[in-house]
Amino acid sequence: MDYNFKVDQPSWLLNEINLGEQFETVESRMSLVIKLSELNVDQRTGGPFAAGVFETETGRLISVGVNQVLASGVSSAHAEVCALSLAQKKLGTFDLGSESSGPHQLVVNWCPCVMCYGAIIWSGITSLVTNVGPEMEDITGFDEGPLHPRWREELNSRGIDFQENVMWSEALKVFEKYRDSGAPVYNARGNK
Amino acid sequence: MDYNFKVDQPSWLLNEINLGEQFETVESRMSLVIKLSELNVDQRTGGPFAAGVFETETGRLISVGVNQVLASGVSSAHAEVCALSLAQKKLGTFDLGSESSGPHQLVVNWCPCVMCYGAIIWSGITSLVTNVGPEMEDITGFDEGPLHPRWREELNSRGIDFQENVMWSEALKVFEKYRDSGAPVYNARGNK
Repeated sequence: MDYNFKVDQPSWLLNEINLGEQFETVESRMSLVIKLSELNVDQRTGGPFAAGVFETETGRLISVGVNQVLASGVSSAHAEVCALSLAQKKLGTFDLGSESSGPHQLVVNWCPCVMCYGAIIWSGITSLVTNVGPEMEDITGFDEGPLHPRWREELNSRGIDFQENVMWSEALKVFEKYRDSGAPVYNARGNK
Repeated sequence: MDYNFKVDQPSWLLNEINLGEQFETVESRMSLVIKLSELNVDQRTGGPFAAGVFETETGRLISVGVNQVLASGVSSAHAEVCALSLAQKKLGTFDLGSESSGPHQLVVNWCPCVMCYGAIIWSGITSLVTNVGPEMEDITGFDEGPLHPRWREELNSRGIDFQENVMWSEALKVFEKYRDSGAPVYNARGNK
């Protein structure tokens, strides 16, 4: 008997991107991701978070994911987990940094929560681009969870380059929009 | 167009359990989980980790999951993420501690890695039972990732009770078996 779980992305998502398109700069990659985070708010299909997996060198887009916790009913369906899992299914490997798959980069509009931080480490990606600061939690009320005090160094020690604060202000604007939309902040304990 | 990922559990798993069966004590719950972790080694279907979600009070078994990283090709398919996701799909909610779903407990044979630690927080469960110590990493070579120094307190502050070291020695025996089997230790960077 089958025993499995499945996480869907929203139907609008593939209309907004071209898998395989090349995004040369990290700014162009982040710009795509921020656009998708905003669309997830506009379409009311989830939290204000999006992520993309790119070939690090060429910028070829391998996968994207937007937050689907509410729609899927699966609390781990954060944007990062979705994008990484979709990339791994597409490339047929659990290791996005293996010699056969080549190096990959995850671009995400805001600092990963503690779960996604771990998911990034195990995914095999060798580069992370994101934005960092207390502003997202302050604006939205989402909880990132307890990251290790030396989380940057712990990434580096596992072979993951880290670039922070690319289009920081643009990323924040989407959180203000989410707050103003009155959409739920769905950390389980936050609902009580 | 559909855009999703799916994570299957191995075909033998549902033959070994009865969903809905009641396990009154935490020892009986852990005993089931350790048995499944060993079967995942014996059947060569994944890493030596298993988890179960139970109704905290009655001990009714809601879901189980075993590590499926290699079989699924998805690096986040750890036992805890699988068990929590399957429970959430079954109960139709992303919050396993909501008033409608009632309180749930996750039982896992060894201390969650940093990703699963976060997944536990977001899942809504209100009780965690596991085993703790450096022995698993020492025996197998798996990496747990950098947990926050005050990770126990951070769980408690989010309303999650924590009980450690239930059938500790029995849990460790499975890791020795895994090491002796020569099966892969598949942390992405550990493969290099």
